[in-house]
Amino acid sequence: MASEFALIARHFSRPTPHTVLGVGDDCALIAPRAGHELLVSSDMLVAGTHFLADTDPGRLGWKTAAVNLSDIAAMGGAPRWITLALALPAADEAWIGALAEGFAECCAAHGVDWVGGDTTRGPLTLCATVLGEAPAGCAIRRSGAQPGDEVWISGTPGRAALGLRHLLDATPLAADWQAPCVTALEQPLPRVELGQGLRGIATAMLDVSDGLCGDLAHILAASACGAVLEEAALPLAPLVAACGDPALARRCLLSGGDDYELLFTAPPGQRAAVDRLSARTGLPLHRIGLCTAEPGLRLRGPDGHAVPLAPTGFDHFA
Amino acid sequence: MASEFALIARHFSRPTPHTVLGVGDDCALIAPRAGHELLVSSDMLVAGTHFLADTDPGRLGWKTAAVNLSDIAAMGGAPRWITLALALPAADEAWIGALAEGFAECCAAHGVDWVGGDTTRGPLTLCATVLGEAPAGCAIRRSGAQPGDEVWISGTPGRAALGLRHLLDATPLAADWQAPCVTALEQPLPRVELGQGLRGIATAMLDVSDGLCGDLAHILAASACGAVLEEAALPLAPLVAACGDPALARRCLLSGGDDYELLFTAPPGQRAAVDRLSARTGLPLHRIGLCTAEPGLRLRGPDGHAVPLAPTGFDHFA
Repeated sequence: MASEFALIARHFSRPTPHTVLGVGDDCALIAPRAGHELLVSSDMLVAGTHFLADTDPGRLGWKTAAVNLSDIAAMGGAPRWITLALALPAADEAWIGALAEGFAECCAAHGVDWVGGDTTRGPLTLCATVLGEAPAGCAIRRSGAQPGDEVWISGTPGRAALGLRHLLDATPLAADWQAPCVTALEQPLPRVELGQGLRGIATAMLDVSDGLCGDLAHILAASACGAVLEEAALPLAPLVAACGDPALARRCLLSGGDDYELLFTAPPGQRAAVDRLSARTGLPLHRIGLCTAEPGLRLRGPDGHAVPLAPTGFDHFA
Repeated sequence: MASEFALIARHFSRPTPHTVLGVGDDCALIAPRAGHELLVSSDMLVAGTHFLADTDPGRLGWKTAAVNLSDIAAMGGAPRWITLALALPAADEAWIGALAEGFAECCAAHGVDWVGGDTTRGPLTLCATVLGEAPAGCAIRRSGAQPGDEVWISGTPGRAALGLRHLLDATPLAADWQAPCVTALEQPLPRVELGQGLRGIATAMLDVSDGLCGDLAHILAASACGAVLEEAALPLAPLVAACGDPALARRCLLSGGDDYELLFTAPPGQRAAVDRLSARTGLPLHRIGLCTAEPGLRLRGPDGHAVPLAPTGFDHFA
């Protein structure tokens, strides 16, 4: 059995070109850029809670990095450095190697240096902490939405929830939608370029990890305003095509988590800028509603009538 | 049952006077000092591997912060910010509140802002990531020891190992040594002031988490030299007083982990500076050996004969 130190040397020590000192000492040493603030976020992924125990280790490694990078993207930052701590039931070296490879691949795709971490024995748990940079004062918080701002969502949220239902045999998906939905669940793409592009455009932003309604409720609470979503504007068509069930598609879009799309608000005067950013990143950006002075979250149906939406995001202890 | 968000609001949102934006957004925002490098370290603690499942939650919270702060101290940095991610089998709020209190207490004692983290359901696991600062180029690495440098250790290493044996009913300890040994195990004191004081004095340093011999071997490997320890110079007397067994005392001192004392090397010309630092911090600093050009780690006994020491530190996968 390889030792803890051999495992670290073999799989967790990668080139760190943007780092003063990487893996191997008590700490990593980094030199943040002058004039920038540092963004810090930690995410923990637990087998059985956040992923199925038989998930492909390479995809799991990718996702562990991706959900962390997504938090930096969600504030308009540039992800720069990351640590990975992991507890493993046993040192299955092939499994660890594949996990490390997937993690490193996602980091490298976004210019992020993997600078350290911890390896220990225990129930399968992964915890990454990512550091990013943004020019001082430019990070996009949850608290800046104003009545009159429009609500936008990137990509096709709801696919990950359909992918999970497919894996659990709960929902048969159309053949050509199975891979995209499972990939959305297992290898989400952090919207790093989009997030940085929205600096100076978005007034509030977060990444959808717990479900669109639940996460939008966080923005509304932090910004002390409400919102009305337009059912006709929701990007439902691809989900209906995938599962053939409009009610399920709507539920996955509004309450399904794990897509890591960016949800943001912007004044109407920024529509052209948002559209240009959509073109530049090749990512659809959907204008799905409007912030209101009246508190609460509502959904306006085809009949023009707005009904309250429960913020049914995912809560680990509900 | 309190929700994840209520738990975070109630127990994990503390004043963060040195932070631009604390708990509550996708990331925390911090502003590192100009001219400084940032030190980053993550440690994961797993129930059953790193602590007994029935450990007092307040002490466990303290220790989780302390072992992370110790990594910053071990490079001569000033700890500044920390995140805590935790997986919990159930949301027992009294337990969580006590854990948070102990964690926050250790942070506050060292001026560290608790800026964020993650809370999820799963087997009891704690993962903290700490950020510290040191003037650029001044962090003390493992790799700077030179033949002729002297080897120093702080405090009374071995007490934590005796404390664990006491808790496991493996070794009865003298009555007045029980509390100090168990406290060394459960509430270690990160040597933050000492670590910073050693900038410009120590040539190599780390904190002893896996055992003195095993950790010294890391310094020797990184510095490409060897060392001879003097048995007569080892601070064995308190351990013998505690357990009454010289052989066990020696084993706990050389191979017991979890004390988080600082192990460092310094040229003989720095003896007076080290002694002054010992007086200033009120912490005994023991000169226990000498770095050699000849590789390997040896122990010189009372007969003047030096014998090889196996680097039997703790390895999670051995």
